[in-house]
Amino acid sequence: MVKQPLVSIIMGSDSDLPTMKECALVLEEFGIPYEVIISSAHRVPEGTAAYAKEAAGRGIQVIVAGAGVAAHLAGVIAAHTPLPVIGVPIQSGALKGLDSLYSIVQMPAGIPVATVAIDGARNAGILAVQILGVKDPELREKITGFKEKMSQKVVEKNQKLQEKGWRKYLEG
Amino acid sequence: MVKQPLVSIIMGSDSDLPTMKECALVLEEFGIPYEVIISSAHRVPEGTAAYAKEAAGRGIQVIVAGAGVAAHLAGVIAAHTPLPVIGVPIQSGALKGLDSLYSIVQMPAGIPVATVAIDGARNAGILAVQILGVKDPELREKITGFKEKMSQKVVEKNQKLQEKGWRKYLEG
Amino acid sequence: MVKQPLVSIIMGSDSDLPTMKECALVLEEFGIPYEVIISSAHRVPEGTAAYAKEAAGRGIQVIVAGAGVAAHLAGVIAAHTPLPVIGVPIQSGALKGLDSLYSIVQMPAGIPVATVAIDGARNAGILAVQILGVKDPELREKITGFKEKMSQKVVEKNQKLQEKGWRKYLEG
Amino acid sequence: MVKQPLVSIIMGSDSDLPTMKECALVLEEFGIPYEVIISSAHRVPEGTAAYAKEAAGRGIQVIVAGAGVAAHLAGVIAAHTPLPVIGVPIQSGALKGLDSLYSIVQMPAGIPVATVAIDGARNAGILAVQILGVKDPELREKITGFKEKMSQKVVEKNQKLQEKGWRKYLEG
Amino acid sequence: MVKQPLVSIIMGSDSDLPTMKECALVLEEFGIPYEVIISSAHRVPEGTAAYAKEAAGRGIQVIVAGAGVAAHLAGVIAAHTPLPVIGVPIQSGALKGLDSLYSIVQMPAGIPVATVAIDGARNAGILAVQILGVKDPELREKITGFKEKMSQKVVEKNQKLQEKGWRKYLEG
Amino acid sequence: MVKQPLVSIIMGSDSDLPTMKECALVLEEFGIPYEVIISSAHRVPEGTAAYAKEAAGRGIQVIVAGAGVAAHLAGVIAAHTPLPVIGVPIQSGALKGLDSLYSIVQMPAGIPVATVAIDGARNAGILAVQILGVKDPELREKITGFKEKMSQKVVEKNQKLQEKGWRKYLEG
Amino acid sequence: MVKQPLVSIIMGSDSDLPTMKECALVLEEFGIPYEVIISSAHRVPEGTAAYAKEAAGRGIQVIVAGAGVAAHLAGVIAAHTPLPVIGVPIQSGALKGLDSLYSIVQMPAGIPVATVAIDGARNAGILAVQILGVKDPELREKITGFKEKMSQKVVEKNQKLQEKGWRKYLEG
Amino acid sequence: MVKQPLVSIIMGSDSDLPTMKECALVLEEFGIPYEVIISSAHRVPEGTAAYAKEAAGRGIQVIVAGAGVAAHLAGVIAAHTPLPVIGVPIQSGALKGLDSLYSIVQMPAGIPVATVAIDGARNAGILAVQILGVKDPELREKITGFKEKMSQKVVEKNQKLQEKGWRKYLEG
Repeated sequence: MVKQPLVSIIMGSDSDLPTMKECALVLEEFGIPYEVIISSAHRVPEGTAAYAKEAAGRGIQVIVAGAGVAAHLAGVIAAHTPLPVIGVPIQSGALKGLDSLYSIVQMPAGIPVATVAIDGARNAGILAVQILGVKDPELREKITGFKEKMSQKVVEKNQKLQEKGWRKYLEG
Repeated sequence: MVKQPLVSIIMGSDSDLPTMKECALVLEEFGIPYEVIISSAHRVPEGTAAYAKEAAGRGIQVIVAGAGVAAHLAGVIAAHTPLPVIGVPIQSGALKGLDSLYSIVQMPAGIPVATVAIDGARNAGILAVQILGVKDPELREKITGFKEKMSQKVVEKNQKLQEKGWRKYLEG
Repeated sequence: MVKQPLVSIIMGSDSDLPTMKECALVLEEFGIPYEVIISSAHRVPEGTAAYAKEAAGRGIQVIVAGAGVAAHLAGVIAAHTPLPVIGVPIQSGALKGLDSLYSIVQMPAGIPVATVAIDGARNAGILAVQILGVKDPELREKITGFKEKMSQKVVEKNQKLQEKGWRKYLEG
Repeated sequence: MVKQPLVSIIMGSDSDLPTMKECALVLEEFGIPYEVIISSAHRVPEGTAAYAKEAAGRGIQVIVAGAGVAAHLAGVIAAHTPLPVIGVPIQSGALKGLDSLYSIVQMPAGIPVATVAIDGARNAGILAVQILGVKDPELREKITGFKEKMSQKVVEKNQKLQEKGWRKYLEG
Repeated sequence: MVKQPLVSIIMGSDSDLPTMKECALVLEEFGIPYEVIISSAHRVPEGTAAYAKEAAGRGIQVIVAGAGVAAHLAGVIAAHTPLPVIGVPIQSGALKGLDSLYSIVQMPAGIPVATVAIDGARNAGILAVQILGVKDPELREKITGFKEKMSQKVVEKNQKLQEKGWRKYLEG
Repeated sequence: MVKQPLVSIIMGSDSDLPTMKECALVLEEFGIPYEVIISSAHRVPEGTAAYAKEAAGRGIQVIVAGAGVAAHLAGVIAAHTPLPVIGVPIQSGALKGLDSLYSIVQMPAGIPVATVAIDGARNAGILAVQILGVKDPELREKITGFKEKMSQKVVEKNQKLQEKGWRKYLEG
Repeated sequence: MVKQPLVSIIMGSDSDLPTMKECALVLEEFGIPYEVIISSAHRVPEGTAAYAKEAAGRGIQVIVAGAGVAAHLAGVIAAHTPLPVIGVPIQSGALKGLDSLYSIVQMPAGIPVATVAIDGARNAGILAVQILGVKDPELREKITGFKEKMSQKVVEKNQKLQEKGWRKYLEG
Repeated sequence: MVKQPLVSIIMGSDSDLPTMKECALVLEEFGIPYEVIISSAHRVPEGTAAYAKEAAGRGIQVIVAGAGVAAHLAGVIAAHTPLPVIGVPIQSGALKGLDSLYSIVQMPAGIPVATVAIDGARNAGILAVQILGVKDPELREKITGFKEKMSQKVVEKNQKLQEKGWRKYLEG
């Protein structure tokens, strides 16, 4: 990546990468430069804190943090930065991401984390773009276009369904 | 309010106002102009859609939507705008806000809602400020100051605790 | 379909079709004309609203809406129509349909959605028939016959079990 | 009540009456004749079965059944009638109505119960009216009017909020 | 079976048989004559009621009822008999038996169901034997022997573990 | 109590007594001699084990064990006796009895506990009577009478409701 | 406190003190010197990290950390110290401590937190004493004595119950 | 094992061994002698009690107890020993370990169990080492080294990610 990254995608373990790459993919769709980091609130606490503290100074505008089980990463990052932090609860272990959701969304007053759905890495990326759109009118227009394309796809699926009927549609 | 509002605080019912006012208060702390709206995804669906569609054009940068039970408001707003939408699940009824949390945070791919804690209206406001900080460096500095003050308060409470001991501290 | 559809089966995504087709199948058993639509409360909000508003005028009597995760479709439809709306929570994602159930059943006062079990598309179809039976005495008699047949099937299974014993029954 | 009741409101205990009366009140708003019954799937099983079996013959068109805890009433009623049955889970005991919701909504294939929110008796009544509207065009128009009035109320609250500001609005 | 059955094993569907057969197997271990019945509280409500009402007169002493989802079978049986009724929640559908557990265990005052674990058919059988042991001292002694054998098995496994070490034990 | 107790009511703490007394009251209604014991699986483990082991020899026929939070009492008792053990989960602490329900009902294969509803002490008593009825035909007849009386009460309430209408009924 | 503290009781907010003081009280019962600290993983992240890193060097042997909602404090402390860390989930907000329990107990591999019950500050103190008992045989004997006294209290309550009967016992 | 074991790993069934062996493996990493025991609170209650009572006298310093479903083992062990007891909830059955977590962590006041995550046997082992570190300064240093190695591993993974980019990293 040559361009200055605007979004940081950070995750607690490389096992989160197959989920979190959806965030990277959507940022690429919008042409947003980003970086991807593996760190851990519990295993590399000082490195994580240092990273969070320096992020704004390095030009990062939004941080997306994904983690599973007792997912403290997003909250710990948020504690060290004035940037908006988006949290992605990741489904893993016996509680299927409910532990992760509660650990991320139920932040105490003063330190918000913008939480998306369990395994919602793609939405985290779109939300990051919407946030960057506050500064960048072109980007906001792109979002409008992106939503129209998404809408169009559903409309086309419905047209296909109306033409073929549901039985043939299900056959593919 | 004379200044052009940058943040819209919308809620599904006036019974949500005692919770959502915390969002307004924190925006005032940061000097962010805002507007407060009662609408309803279910009772005023067209008005809500129209409001969401026009918000960006009117200069709104972030929308904060609070609702209880099957809380569709934030998702419905998000469907009609390219702006970042923050959702506040509100505790009400038998399920104590868990229904509202699930209805807001578990948005399908394509339409994110930045969800905060149940009754987390104050954090919704801070998150809105952090998002505006992407565009406004002065605001970002204010956030850093805000966090330092918050930190200082905890440090002072701890000092008082060390001086008095916990028994006297509890007496007040 | 040549006949005027009486029931609309609408779903948020074509991935819901393998579940929702059970509704279509049971309507066919009763000879009820229906239509099947893919739309989305979040991706095609205006199309969905327009569809809901026009449904009654087009002769639709009951709308069955199926969706997963933060399932707003049934509620949004219900907001735009005086018709009875049946909601089918669809199992998908980490929360296995509990998010969808809460999003559909916990509707605020004024806008009911008649909710059936998670993945209960077949029951949604039967419920639609029961509702149409309010107007059509022949249909109500058919329901009574349908229930008798269902009852008979259980009785026959039990007879087979009594004759063969459970060990042989389990062998098939 | 002189007129032939069209809706039956049945509940498992007289302790459910303060909740279920909301259903009666909304039926009165629409001018729908109804009857109110206390029975119990467990304490009066034969009386309940007999009542359910005879309801359709007596001209009842919709049955609304409310019960708490292991709420079998709606399901048992549905087993004995071809009429649409609306179930109202009632909040009571340690599980706060979640037990009741699961007992009512998770009906097996073949015997649907149209479930509304926990303590959602008012919505049960509106749903009953919507179902009766399938037969009665005038009633359907009344529903449209009812929804407009509901919408108007929200709009008026919002106007008042805009005029007074939220601080004065909260003062009352 | 020639002998008069003392225990009735009843289930809502033949899909429950692979789980419920564990109850039959343990009754055979204790030499208790039993019968196995498929019925359904919702699909064969009158047959189920009749069966429950006649059970005591036919010499049945304990009824074991297994069902999934909104599991009303045990409660409906209990409503029609003075016999002790044991309920087995069966894991099925999206809620994995939690719906069934709540529907069975949370019975209102007056009509108890002796509930065992989700899929706990074997324990239902042992509990039935313990109940019959109230009348039959020989049976109670058999239970004591059964528990000793169960205890012995654990002790032997532990001895094998001590001799082999856990690595070899895991190899088999 | 002069008569040999047939039922033992044991609880983990005297704070459970206001709930568990309902069990005693219903046993008195049926004329069943009982004893009430405070013990604790965790605080008096040996006394509890000794009590459980000796109960059968002392003529006890059924043990009812009530406890809150991580409620091990019923399971520990069941481990030491061939008698049927009824468990009453008691609502206390943050999880409102759900912890207690899971700790009691989810017993592993081999050691059943007949679980009733959270705070279902009255039903535990009725279940104990039903179990004693296996041995005592007179008692079984009493149960039938008890159920008829219960049924009659509901019927009378309904008659009163029909006579007065629900508005006056609610006034008392 | 003159003596070198062996146990640190740290909490996220002074609103946790009424719960956490139970930990202090039980440590005093055992004569264990302790210190009480208010800090916050999110509001004072660096101070909290510094405190955790220095605790072992200052002679602290066990850290007890109590926090509510998305309770990251115990995990963050554990990330910075080789000492055993005991976590106390504190009941607060809409989810009643379940969020806090999941955030504390579901720690990823490598960084354990010894979790006690929601609001279980007293048990956290006893556990700290048991851990110190590993080094201090006298303390272990005290624990044995403490458990005997606890046992004795239950036995005495039971004796009182046997003498008075439950009716008089309940009167006080 | 020649050396006196310091940690006892006890589990309710040999089906828990594939999970609990992670505890043994981490103890071996630290050179801590241990023993592995299969016992059962319900099937071998007296053997389990005797084992727990004798453990401290035999030189055991920490007991790790793993069990599934209504997991009483850790609590029952804790009732009989002054040693610190670590509980490992094991995922099994319909409730996926949530029953086990509640049964272990929600211990009543007086008898703590140091609970780790569902299936968290490795963390149970690390916690046992941390507890032994209270007595053994060398061990505490080893823990610090262990944490550094763990940290280093994450750092290396991140370096590899930065060098290869996420696409190649995912390819392996």
